Amino acid sequence: MMSWRGFGSDNHAGVHPEVLAAIAEANSGHAHAYGDDPWTGRAIAAIRSQLGHDAQVALVWNGTGANVVGLSALCKPWESVVCASSAHINTDECAAPEHIANVKLVPVDTPDGKLTPELVEPQLTGFGFEHHAQPRAISVSQASELGTVYSPEELRALANVAHSHGMVLHVDGARIANAAAGLGCSLAAISGEAGVDVLSFGGTKNGMLAGEAVVLFGDEVTDDLAYVRKQSGQLASKMRFISAQFVAMYEGDLWQRCAANANAMAARLAEGAIARGVQIVHEVRANEVFALLPDERVAALAARFHFYTWQPGAAPGHSLVRWVTSWDTTAEDVDGLLGEL
Amino acid sequence: MMSWRGFGSDNHAGVHPEVLAAIAEANSGHAHAYGDDPWTGRAIAAIRSQLGHDAQVALVWNGTGANVVGLSALCKPWESVVCASSAHINTDECAAPEHIANVKLVPVDTPDGKLTPELVEPQLTGFGFEHHAQPRAISVSQASELGTVYSPEELRALANVAHSHGMVLHVDGARIANAAAGLGCSLAAISGEAGVDVLSFGGTKNGMLAGEAVVLFGDEVTDDLAYVRKQSGQLASKMRFISAQFVAMYEGDLWQRCAANANAMAARLAEGAIARGVQIVHEVRANEVFALLPDERVAALAARFHFYTWQPGAAPGHSLVRWVTSWDTTAEDVDGLLGEL
Amino acid sequence: MMSWRGFGSDNHAGVHPEVLAAIAEANSGHAHAYGDDPWTGRAIAAIRSQLGHDAQVALVWNGTGANVVGLSALCKPWESVVCASSAHINTDECAAPEHIANVKLVPVDTPDGKLTPELVEPQLTGFGFEHHAQPRAISVSQASELGTVYSPEELRALANVAHSHGMVLHVDGARIANAAAGLGCSLAAISGEAGVDVLSFGGTKNGMLAGEAVVLFGDEVTDDLAYVRKQSGQLASKMRFISAQFVAMYEGDLWQRCAANANAMAARLAEGAIARGVQIVHEVRANEVFALLPDERVAALAARFHFYTWQPGAAPGHSLVRWVTSWDTTAEDVDGLLGEL
Amino acid sequence: MMSWRGFGSDNHAGVHPEVLAAIAEANSGHAHAYGDDPWTGRAIAAIRSQLGHDAQVALVWNGTGANVVGLSALCKPWESVVCASSAHINTDECAAPEHIANVKLVPVDTPDGKLTPELVEPQLTGFGFEHHAQPRAISVSQASELGTVYSPEELRALANVAHSHGMVLHVDGARIANAAAGLGCSLAAISGEAGVDVLSFGGTKNGMLAGEAVVLFGDEVTDDLAYVRKQSGQLASKMRFISAQFVAMYEGDLWQRCAANANAMAARLAEGAIARGVQIVHEVRANEVFALLPDERVAALAARFHFYTWQPGAAPGHSLVRWVTSWDTTAEDVDGLLGEL
Repeated sequence: MMSWRGFGSDNHAGVHPEVLAAIAEANSGHAHAYGDDPWTGRAIAAIRSQLGHDAQVALVWNGTGANVVGLSALCKPWESVVCASSAHINTDECAAPEHIANVKLVPVDTPDGKLTPELVEPQLTGFGFEHHAQPRAISVSQASELGTVYSPEELRALANVAHSHGMVLHVDGARIANAAAGLGCSLAAISGEAGVDVLSFGGTKNGMLAGEAVVLFGDEVTDDLAYVRKQSGQLASKMRFISAQFVAMYEGDLWQRCAANANAMAARLAEGAIARGVQIVHEVRANEVFALLPDERVAALAARFHFYTWQPGAAPGHSLVRWVTSWDTTAEDVDGLLGEL
Repeated sequence: MMSWRGFGSDNHAGVHPEVLAAIAEANSGHAHAYGDDPWTGRAIAAIRSQLGHDAQVALVWNGTGANVVGLSALCKPWESVVCASSAHINTDECAAPEHIANVKLVPVDTPDGKLTPELVEPQLTGFGFEHHAQPRAISVSQASELGTVYSPEELRALANVAHSHGMVLHVDGARIANAAAGLGCSLAAISGEAGVDVLSFGGTKNGMLAGEAVVLFGDEVTDDLAYVRKQSGQLASKMRFISAQFVAMYEGDLWQRCAANANAMAARLAEGAIARGVQIVHEVRANEVFALLPDERVAALAARFHFYTWQPGAAPGHSLVRWVTSWDTTAEDVDGLLGEL
Repeated sequence: MMSWRGFGSDNHAGVHPEVLAAIAEANSGHAHAYGDDPWTGRAIAAIRSQLGHDAQVALVWNGTGANVVGLSALCKPWESVVCASSAHINTDECAAPEHIANVKLVPVDTPDGKLTPELVEPQLTGFGFEHHAQPRAISVSQASELGTVYSPEELRALANVAHSHGMVLHVDGARIANAAAGLGCSLAAISGEAGVDVLSFGGTKNGMLAGEAVVLFGDEVTDDLAYVRKQSGQLASKMRFISAQFVAMYEGDLWQRCAANANAMAARLAEGAIARGVQIVHEVRANEVFALLPDERVAALAARFHFYTWQPGAAPGHSLVRWVTSWDTTAEDVDGLLGEL
Repeated sequence: MMSWRGFGSDNHAGVHPEVLAAIAEANSGHAHAYGDDPWTGRAIAAIRSQLGHDAQVALVWNGTGANVVGLSALCKPWESVVCASSAHINTDECAAPEHIANVKLVPVDTPDGKLTPELVEPQLTGFGFEHHAQPRAISVSQASELGTVYSPEELRALANVAHSHGMVLHVDGARIANAAAGLGCSLAAISGEAGVDVLSFGGTKNGMLAGEAVVLFGDEVTDDLAYVRKQSGQLASKMRFISAQFVAMYEGDLWQRCAANANAMAARLAEGAIARGVQIVHEVRANEVFALLPDERVAALAARFHFYTWQPGAAPGHSLVRWVTSWDTTAEDVDGLLGEL
């Protein structure tokens, strides 16, 4: 089949060669199933070395699984989760949070995909009132679905709001590597060190074949996590092959190299587009670029490159398009797109 | 790490080299996510070529996922599923059928892990009575958790019972390849052709890295399947890497070669054990052998080989042990165990 | 205990004497349980005489029960319900719609508690897209939680929007009697005749002891309703005592007399308050009055009369209060409150 | 309508006059909703005076509601409940325990509707094993669905088993008044004092219009109860009318008078039947009598009296019938049936 690369999604990219090699290397003889194998131990140690040594780690299949398992482990069925209207858990998980994690979502409109204490606090009402779903978590996406990122200070402010109400801060970190690379900080700085209580720790979008992790911090560590993961269908039998990918990604700096390349390509794309008079809508801090383009240019571009029209008709005669870069995006790829603009 | 092979589970075996090669081959450039890629199309075609050309196929991560998605797609929350007490869905899925698929299980004790019309029919009561969960599915495991298999005729008899009550027949086929190889029949003969309505079509235990499929037949084909899969967290983003494994396994006869080897090794093991005076408890038709051993022999054996004690104290001074063979079990492995008996 | 009457809620009023007499009259000898009794037959006939002769009727305990049973009967677990942010199902049912009915709520901010096609249509996206919960119902409250009502034409417009997308229109009619009395129309005119598909038909707030009904219209009639009601814990064993109340209320015009009194008292209260310079915030068409009062007047008033402060600090130095009138509110009650203003 | 009395169910009996009078008496002016009224305070005090002064009490609508709310308050979604196969929660609640309370049921066959430590213990396996639903509760019905009762000692033995595994003992006490009257003991002796952790405390079957209570004891008292009740649709708005019934029933000895009459009539019926050569199948300790009758006698009897055939064809040419007596059954009623035998 013909090989191509586009700007549709970091899910469209394949597997980094070092990750694939790690999978092959793990394919040696028998190993105990369900995580009782050496690779899983190494993977958990590697993740802890990045996030904090007392973090609780459970590997799962995918992002919806990580979000559902993490929220379910910490929330009771009458509790609610405040999130951005644009959050993946609200728009793209087919009501899995409501049905599988049994939480109520309280969506809040945001200008840039990011929650702030000011946006969240009006929703934190009805505590102790039995008629009202009890606010239990604030959930943010890092990087957000609009390509913006939360600084450690912004996360800490939200964590403080959450903790002051006995709530927890959840981070959907499907692109947390891109956020850390964009912020130039460690993964710990935007998770446990910032007061995050539960993290969906991404792997797939940054060059893995499949695999995410649920990570609990501090007081939220709980034996319940194992049961929630199993019941939610997120416990891999031949787990070593998920774990080996995390080993490849997080024992060294592969996560950073992959994310840094994707971010650099997004920056090159945004800068080039701006230079060509294109309006870039949100600050580009990770690997997503949102551009407002005349509809005829969208059509011409789409004929040669794959990407998604995020909001058709966002302005008269214009649409908002999303370009996503990946660990394998090259400068030539970007320049090709720019050349067409 | 030191390589070893044991008799604990077919989940302990690794990935067949042809499957791993297919994954590597699929790692070329970008591909659309969530199944809109060439490998998934080929995988579905390959599965249909084995099971029936009008079957509906949805690839999922794992066995619990396949069972939950399949049952959920066909059952309403007030409907029930009759199964063997020993069924995986009853004993080993941490109440996922009840909580994620929202079905009630009606377990029935069996002598050999197999349901029969005689065992099932007394449970088929209360139709139309609003106080009673409505019987909706009969669920069997093929091969069963005790290593026994259903002939096409036995499945057809259960399907007839189900259909005569407006119910469906579900097959948990985590080891359906072993069953087909053991019966010497096609996969179609023990699924769609036998009246099966919904199948959890196994891959992982027979040499894949990860991947199962939900297959619906005949009138049960439904657009709901896509939503159920997504909501249940069973939709892979980089699906091509699941699909490529099915291509490797089912475009040709790899599934049969793997299963036939496992079955042959189980037969060799059972015959050798019987020759050494060991009591084999259930008929060995697939890749599982259940043996009643004196407790001291269990201890000695366990010091050298990995396997599970299925029922400690099954008889005075004896325990029931389970030996599982895999696609990679060798005659030397078996003879080593036999030598110890 | 000392008897009093306030303006806190129509749930604070007791039982109309004719309703209580009907309960006592039904207390004669034995009767079959779960609705297989003469009173239930009469109640269903009475409700149908008001709403439409082919309506399907299931009596339930309370309003949350009616909403949950009605939505659950028509929605699948991956489907969503668009409602006003202020809707009872969103704010006051402790996530029962999400957890018991298994639907996702999509709340929309409104100026007056009422949805319009313009407000709803932007939410009707993602049909057929497996990542997105599928829009299935538009839910409105009649009268709304802010005391406003939908005209038959407004309901028809929403029903048309719903039906054009294969969706249904749900009405939370806890105060539908007040709405009909306020509009001067029949109950049928704002339910089945206006295109409503499923109605929570109120009784308790209008003078009953306890009892609501789920009513399905047209194509939405389904045998599933019985199972949903039972499973949701909403099937009364001694149902004749719920049914007898509906007989008393709906065989004649008691529902209208009760609602008309409550509405007249609300109008009297609103007019008197306006005459005293008080700002009434929403149009008063049913039995709820929302007034913006200086905080010190709220405190003085609350010392003598029971009512709820709906939004403290709604304007600088002012709060929004809610006064609810009931079937038993008298002109003297109203004039007493007005005298204090 | 013609008045009659039968032996079909204690749900077929009406409301005791003292209960109805209490409802009428409570119908005076306004009262705060949802339990913040004087009658609810009195009802809770009355129930505590019977069951234990530190019991936590939440009034609900009906028996399914009580069972679901009680189990849900104490169990997590991956936990299981061991019960008799014949238990109401297993056979007659349309999978509400699985779907609304989110528990897995583990049914056990019993000779007489009663669990024993010997029957329960083999099910208490897999603790700490993430694949297995975690055993959390033992649930018994007092009186059982077969009319048998548990002595305080028998309950204590089951409580000890439960507690030794960190589990709880749940009692479905829809007929606990009949059990206490049959045992000649206090209600406390077969609830909190016997180690019961959570009780569905019956009212409806013993002469109330509608109303049950969830009662938690000791360490199981939890603030979660309020949210579970509300979310489950079991929070009555005009709660005073439920509460007034409990006041009538439990401030004095009405509960005992009602239950004692029903039990005495069952005893008279059983004795008379035995004297006429009828085989009574289970020990008659409460208000249910199970008799094995020739089929032709069943038909003749059913033509004159209402009762249920429990198990058609229980023996060749014979069926098992169930006769239930009520608070209002008279000696004439019983003698009428006996005369027909």
